Amino acid sequence: MKLLEERIISQGQGIGDDILKVDMFLNHRIDVELLGKMGEEFHRLFAGRGINKIVTVEASGIGIACITAQYFSVPVVFAKKGAHRNCNDEKYIADVFSFTKNETTTIGISKPYLGPEDKVLIIDDFLADGNACLGLISLCEQAGATVAGIGIAIEKGFQAGRRKLLERGYDLHSLAVIKSIAGGRIEFDDAE
Amino acid sequence: MKLLEERIISQGQGIGDDILKVDMFLNHRIDVELLGKMGEEFHRLFAGRGINKIVTVEASGIGIACITAQYFSVPVVFAKKGAHRNCNDEKYIADVFSFTKNETTTIGISKPYLGPEDKVLIIDDFLADGNACLGLISLCEQAGATVAGIGIAIEKGFQAGRRKLLERGYDLHSLAVIKSIAGGRIEFDDAE
Repeated sequence: MKLLEERIISQGQGIGDDILKVDMFLNHRIDVELLGKMGEEFHRLFAGRGINKIVTVEASGIGIACITAQYFSVPVVFAKKGAHRNCNDEKYIADVFSFTKNETTTIGISKPYLGPEDKVLIIDDFLADGNACLGLISLCEQAGATVAGIGIAIEKGFQAGRRKLLERGYDLHSLAVIKSIAGGRIEFDDAE
Repeated sequence: MKLLEERIISQGQGIGDDILKVDMFLNHRIDVELLGKMGEEFHRLFAGRGINKIVTVEASGIGIACITAQYFSVPVVFAKKGAHRNCNDEKYIADVFSFTKNETTTIGISKPYLGPEDKVLIIDDFLADGNACLGLISLCEQAGATVAGIGIAIEKGFQAGRRKLLERGYDLHSLAVIKSIAGGRIEFDDAE
């Protein structure tokens, strides 16, 4: 998506060889007009699949998920972080390892909010190693829900996330795919 | 706001004398259509004040803030939790004590995203004792920004938040004010 790539170039910040900071419009300050265009694009990409729920994970996925959900006229359910493995038969839970933070977080969705009747579009702000996404997929599987698609704002194409998701047969679309951030210089992969 | 009150009655859950669970449409599953009506109402209440930024705190404030921001055509900035007091000259930070969780969280906004040019509408999902809101006000004050209004989805009118905010002269509107949750039974205060 050209508009998003342009915004990444003008307002994003490449740090070292693998960090992209987009706090200016996506992860801290949120440009809701841009999110509207992104939501419209997700709708174009995933329309007609009977999607009836958007699933994301707190915190920075919530904004893009909510605005995208308006185009599908469906509700959002966001997985909460810091769920506990113990005494939690009321929640679907999954462990997510973050390379960036070098820590494992347990995410959870309460059982009444996800079930076999759901055709889910997973939306997230970033795809890197794919662990957050696999965690959300696991929650959907536990609930018996169908994952009808995965929509990502910004993908780090040089990490393993895409391969892991395609191997499992998921339909993945990323609005911007970063090919490299060599020495802070951002290059895109426009192949998708 | 009648629509929100009806939703609280039909889908909210009063627990004991002071807990209201609205996971069905606001805090876990998010009904974006309802949020649209709430955003429209916030716009009606706060239009014409030159608001150029909406400020909230992660995580459950983000959805309602983003959708409200569409009606004002302004960006959202959300305060992040877990900021550190040390080595943080790049952030405005404030401590927020939560009675519900009996713990203090430090919230922060990076300095480039809030400044003296900002006329801020603070939006949050709940107002109870007012500490989260006072934390957000403190961040705005540190930045030299003006707080032009405070919009709350659900206020627990039987707690001290409203008094604290009105004493300081802020213009507060809550879309639903709970008078009491006696033994799980929810009653509204329609005076506002």
